[in-house]
Amino acid sequence: MNQKRPFILISNDDGYHANGIKTLVSFLKDRADLLVCAPEAGRSGFACAFSAAIPLRLKRRHNMGDVEVWSCNGTPVDCVKLAVDQLCSERQPDLILGGINHGDNASVNSHYSGTMGVAREGCMKYIPSVAFSTSDYDEEADLRYLRDDACRIVDKVLAEGLPKGVCLNVNFPAKPPFKGVKVCRMAFGSWVNEVVKARHPHGYDYYWLAGECRNDEPEAADSDHWALQHGYIAITPTRIDVTDYGFIDTVKGWDL
Amino acid sequence: MNQKRPFILISNDDGYHANGIKTLVSFLKDRADLLVCAPEAGRSGFACAFSAAIPLRLKRRHNMGDVEVWSCNGTPVDCVKLAVDQLCSERQPDLILGGINHGDNASVNSHYSGTMGVAREGCMKYIPSVAFSTSDYDEEADLRYLRDDACRIVDKVLAEGLPKGVCLNVNFPAKPPFKGVKVCRMAFGSWVNEVVKARHPHGYDYYWLAGECRNDEPEAADSDHWALQHGYIAITPTRIDVTDYGFIDTVKGWDL
Repeated sequence: MNQKRPFILISNDDGYHANGIKTLVSFLKDRADLLVCAPEAGRSGFACAFSAAIPLRLKRRHNMGDVEVWSCNGTPVDCVKLAVDQLCSERQPDLILGGINHGDNASVNSHYSGTMGVAREGCMKYIPSVAFSTSDYDEEADLRYLRDDACRIVDKVLAEGLPKGVCLNVNFPAKPPFKGVKVCRMAFGSWVNEVVKARHPHGYDYYWLAGECRNDEPEAADSDHWALQHGYIAITPTRIDVTDYGFIDTVKGWDL
Repeated sequence: MNQKRPFILISNDDGYHANGIKTLVSFLKDRADLLVCAPEAGRSGFACAFSAAIPLRLKRRHNMGDVEVWSCNGTPVDCVKLAVDQLCSERQPDLILGGINHGDNASVNSHYSGTMGVAREGCMKYIPSVAFSTSDYDEEADLRYLRDDACRIVDKVLAEGLPKGVCLNVNFPAKPPFKGVKVCRMAFGSWVNEVVKARHPHGYDYYWLAGECRNDEPEAADSDHWALQHGYIAITPTRIDVTDYGFIDTVKGWDL
């Protein structure tokens, strides 16, 4: 590897074969040394889950061009843990990227997202980390139009770094042209109509989790959900320290 | 159900049969109407994961005394989603509890914890929610000594409520007597030595995720990790809004 080029670890939650990860590799292969380690199949909604109880495997897959690709049978977080420990022992990544995810991760979806799990795990290892997601849910969508925006964000993070304990949650609207970038706060939202009952041929009930994410602050023009809905790229700086500092004194006052 | 008594939904990530959940039921059954809905087996480290791709089932199990118990084949978050939607349609919970978890969830473990997944999910549904965890990893430990402290916290949250988007992460030291309660911030910590390579009889490598959580701020007396290590009950008010507000202006200055 050329030590003058940055080294970027890429993972996702849609699987190593996903269109979004191939697109991200195609954007970055000329400006960085890349390594892909991603789930062997889709792991949407896996959040920061890691595998405490199952044995994990890494499998070498066909390269993407010159880029080594590995799959793991675990979660997105497992991929980062194994890749950093087993595949990056000679050189630690300068940057960890999750995505490009098929489906946005704005609002409370930040908490459920395996793509954000990748970014949080990198961030918890004190490595600058960014999650990329698009509101275009079409897994076969041609995402080449994201090249300039994604590369500009990657270049800037490589140049400026990120503070300890902060990663970026980047969400693209479904279709260009974009109106620009908004640096946002996370919107409050709620999953509604999310439980769908169905009937198994053998006569018992089962359930699918589906539904939609309702924006509970539709007027909040400083929020990521608003930005996406109005055609802006939303960048939400996201903390690992989830303490609610403003509520500490109230709980102290409870005199427990 | 008696409408004058509060109604509490209890889940966990150790499974419906776990000692910690039985203990919590025994503490609260005289002061509240309870419902248990928890994973059918252990789901440690499942964070906020939900099941986007598998059909979910609910199974009625033997009561704990008068308390209805259900299991679900999914994650802790799935349990909350299904229980609130399918089992609480007549009366929404006044409080959602996760735990008592066997193992602490201080520091960055807040992000990995399925017990905290329960509390976050409740909080994202705007229902006051608390996660209880103990540093005693012995799954058969007699936890009856936690009764007074757990009940005092539950009573206070029922009386005072919690702000929108804030839940409590409560961690007990491994052994009494406790020195008291500290209302804390989340400590920064790192999982180290976490990947352990092993060899399958058929000759291939596999990996276990194990290791230990290193406290990266051992002197920080305002943090949850410090509190636990010094014999205090640690209460960390925890936010759903994970925006790093302090970094927004910096990223705006990048002029992306």
